[in-house]
Amino acid sequence: MDSRYEMFEIKKSDLAGRIGVLHTNHGRVETPAYVPVIHPVRQSIPAGKIRQMGFDLVITNAYITLKQHGDRAASEGIHGIIGYDGAIMTDSGGYQVLEYGDIDTDYKRMADFERRIATDFAIPLDRPTGFGLPKKKASSYVDHTLKVSKETLEASADNGQIWIGPIQGSEYNDLVRKSTRSLVSYGFKMLALGSPVEFMESYEYRLLAGMIVAAKKEMPQSIPLHLFGAGHPLTIPLAVALGCDTFDSASYMLYAKHDRYITEDGTSHLGEMAYFPCNCEVCSRFRPKEILGLPREDKINKIAIHNLYSIKAEVDRVKQAIHEGRLWEYALKKARAHPKLFESLPVLTSSTAFLSEGTPRFKENAIFIFSGEDQFRPEVARFHSMVRKFRTAKKSLVIIPDWGTKPFYLSPEYRRLRRRFAASLDDVQFCQYNPYLGLIPLELSDVYPASHYVMSDSKGNPEDFAEFARTLAIFLRNNKFKAIHAANDEFLKYHAKHAGKKVRFFDLQKPSTRKNRRHAAKASTP
Amino acid sequence: MDSRYEMFEIKKSDLAGRIGVLHTNHGRVETPAYVPVIHPVRQSIPAGKIRQMGFDLVITNAYITLKQHGDRAASEGIHGIIGYDGAIMTDSGGYQVLEYGDIDTDYKRMADFERRIATDFAIPLDRPTGFGLPKKKASSYVDHTLKVSKETLEASADNGQIWIGPIQGSEYNDLVRKSTRSLVSYGFKMLALGSPVEFMESYEYRLLAGMIVAAKKEMPQSIPLHLFGAGHPLTIPLAVALGCDTFDSASYMLYAKHDRYITEDGTSHLGEMAYFPCNCEVCSRFRPKEILGLPREDKINKIAIHNLYSIKAEVDRVKQAIHEGRLWEYALKKARAHPKLFESLPVLTSSTAFLSEGTPRFKENAIFIFSGEDQFRPEVARFHSMVRKFRTAKKSLVIIPDWGTKPFYLSPEYRRLRRRFAASLDDVQFCQYNPYLGLIPLELSDVYPASHYVMSDSKGNPEDFAEFARTLAIFLRNNKFKAIHAANDEFLKYHAKHAGKKVRFFDLQKPSTRKNRRHAAKASTP
Repeated sequence: MDSRYEMFEIKKSDLAGRIGVLHTNHGRVETPAYVPVIHPVRQSIPAGKIRQMGFDLVITNAYITLKQHGDRAASEGIHGIIGYDGAIMTDSGGYQVLEYGDIDTDYKRMADFERRIATDFAIPLDRPTGFGLPKKKASSYVDHTLKVSKETLEASADNGQIWIGPIQGSEYNDLVRKSTRSLVSYGFKMLALGSPVEFMESYEYRLLAGMIVAAKKEMPQSIPLHLFGAGHPLTIPLAVALGCDTFDSASYMLYAKHDRYITEDGTSHLGEMAYFPCNCEVCSRFRPKEILGLPREDKINKIAIHNLYSIKAEVDRVKQAIHEGRLWEYALKKARAHPKLFESLPVLTSSTAFLSEGTPRFKENAIFIFSGEDQFRPEVARFHSMVRKFRTAKKSLVIIPDWGTKPFYLSPEYRRLRRRFAASLDDVQFCQYNPYLGLIPLELSDVYPASHYVMSDSKGNPEDFAEFARTLAIFLRNNKFKAIHAANDEFLKYHAKHAGKKVRFFDLQKPSTRKNRRHAAKASTP
Repeated sequence: MDSRYEMFEIKKSDLAGRIGVLHTNHGRVETPAYVPVIHPVRQSIPAGKIRQMGFDLVITNAYITLKQHGDRAASEGIHGIIGYDGAIMTDSGGYQVLEYGDIDTDYKRMADFERRIATDFAIPLDRPTGFGLPKKKASSYVDHTLKVSKETLEASADNGQIWIGPIQGSEYNDLVRKSTRSLVSYGFKMLALGSPVEFMESYEYRLLAGMIVAAKKEMPQSIPLHLFGAGHPLTIPLAVALGCDTFDSASYMLYAKHDRYITEDGTSHLGEMAYFPCNCEVCSRFRPKEILGLPREDKINKIAIHNLYSIKAEVDRVKQAIHEGRLWEYALKKARAHPKLFESLPVLTSSTAFLSEGTPRFKENAIFIFSGEDQFRPEVARFHSMVRKFRTAKKSLVIIPDWGTKPFYLSPEYRRLRRRFAASLDDVQFCQYNPYLGLIPLELSDVYPASHYVMSDSKGNPEDFAEFARTLAIFLRNNKFKAIHAANDEFLKYHAKHAGKKVRFFDLQKPSTRKNRRHAAKASTP
């Protein structure tokens, strides 16, 4: 296999997330993929068991392998050493070299070792910036890592191994961007981004998200991105939505050693648990107290196996969400699992253009609309763009609320309106509106998603709908209406006033609640 | 066992939800419990398998049993007929009698039959109001059901059977209330509420929620409530949060017959699925396509077994949420699974007093605060009540923002403030504020949850914080300050203006972001 071509196939995408396949010397790896960390010496859950559970890619540490197994590793190969026949990624030990101040191990030796142990994904010996370095020092680490990476890639053999370019820079987004641009220009076909331990420990998911976006914007879509050290169900939807394809973490085991049980929304101490909200092979057979009563090693392994299943289920939920085109909804719901995760929402709502690239123009499912954030989801933002380009020569504008019948021209309100404006029908531009999608000109009312959404009727504050205001202003600037008529409602009144336009308000009879309910039911996908 | 006493034990509660135990002639049933529907004739998944999966209570139909098995049922008992040794609830067939216009089966005969088949939970032959009946007719159904229920209970034997009072009234909340009050006064020790099929089919979760609250407010806490026909993971958290203890549904099987796979947030057609986000015995062995390829009966049973596991996991998540005191957070997160579920939030946010009864005053975990709805959660509302009663004779008020150090008197800002107001310290009332908890007087700053929360820093619109405004107004009315000083911030400025008070604003240096981050990290529970 030639690693330079078609190493990564993208099957489906939503937001910046995608379902893809990595082709390696040891088989296919479907992404997004959680990559369990395997210890090259002390690994109590056999890598073979992990493979059986459905993990086709693991990561281990080449530096520790070198120190502990030396030349034996080169003859047996890393697959023999850890007892795993799927794809293996090896971290080069940049952290360890820094921490132990090991000056004997240089990047050429590490690269040579990674080649000899026949790892599938190799990483040059980088100098991680971590978190909290003065910028000058961080910058010098970035430069060093770039130099090493360039030379390592140039010296690499065409043997099917995939070399991963390590992006450094941490909290300095300009360094992250520079680092990414350079690695892409050197020809790396896959990149990896460090999620500083400090970010994760202090729940700085917003900083993590910002760092991912900074890197992704400098990379072509065709290059997969690995995220180091961020494989918890809490952060997986965000990381995938922003375009991370693989992510490793050792937490399944580290947590298990402290009786910590991973759930989809966080981590619980086993001692605080009365119920296992999980149907995995461990949780369906044991109760929390029974696990706590097991001998230490058995207990740790059982918790670790559950933790792996829990992470796997989260990845599958995210994959199914991409498959159904619901990743936005899923990531936003997940954000309510922790207030610090919730703080990362502005990164999503301010990245509409970036997230649009991978979002299909048409989806089989209706989109769900809940609250203010949803005005920024790609499908909605695209509809706004379309309306902002809409031109008509008609002289009057009539705006009525969206009461649920889709498309709009089939609604009883529209029929009544036609009668009301019968005298000048050819001269009237009819629009529906809803606070999220903005104005919906009759002519665009069956364009996705104008007739393909299920919207909560919860009332927001009119001033929170900045996209609506902008679309209205542009629409009125682009089209020279002599008269504007609008149904009498508070939302429209606020925005008409805001736009400084004279509007004649009229009363429109609202259909009965039961009729509304039926429409709502038909529109939604159970 | 005497069913009239201690039939229901409450172990733990949160909001109106509780973890409890029902003691029956066939053992203990822990609640909240999902109650699978077992067909007395055509049941393809053996009831014994369902018992093994951890369901200790099932429901079957006494009317169909009578029609199909007749006297054999009386001699074998319902446990023999369906092959199940746990607790059994029997619906009396009110729907069927109405539908088939069966006039031979009267309520005395049904009650006698339910006694003879030795069901654990029996239901009098009610006349269900369904949905959409004219009020007069609904009212006559309620009266009929009450008459039947009263006579049936009076004639019941003291044999350990638990008779359940069926609440009717549907969308007419006054009828629901009257129905509940009457059944309680007759001496029923358990009640059941019908969730009209029409509500569920049209996703009218807000109406469902309103109906549950109407009934619950007329019942003592000690009486358990069953909810008919509402056992989907989507609605379980809401139903439990509002005080439903058991809930049945046949959907695990009905859905399976149409290849519909239940997930925690909805239902998917198997044909649309590429990934199973589940670790149950079915999903960990098969892929969606493999299941679709099985012979029809095998396929249906496999999907149905998964559906049961999926519902079970949801119930366990809800139980663990009650155990951890996180049911509010869990129910609000779940609301983002469907826009129509999201519409039920106002029922929660307007029921603070009702939801407070079961919410512990102190919890081991910090509460999570995300957005506007959280000002109405019981713990927060209680803190507002406390501050609204706070009295001080001090002459000056100083208000500063809450920047994360808890309790407030340990914060560097407070130390700086003390220096600033050193000349008149004894005369100064110091308060911190945050938009959700409102004013936090120094003296109350370590009362739960004033120092026990993790709050998102996402900015809301100041005018959305009505509880803050009310607390501020009451606090200023109760305490006669001669001078008010406040840190210069937009939120306080808006509310000072709104309260019509003259406030002197001063600048307060914000601690550095990194310090803030550290505090946030310490305060949160991973």
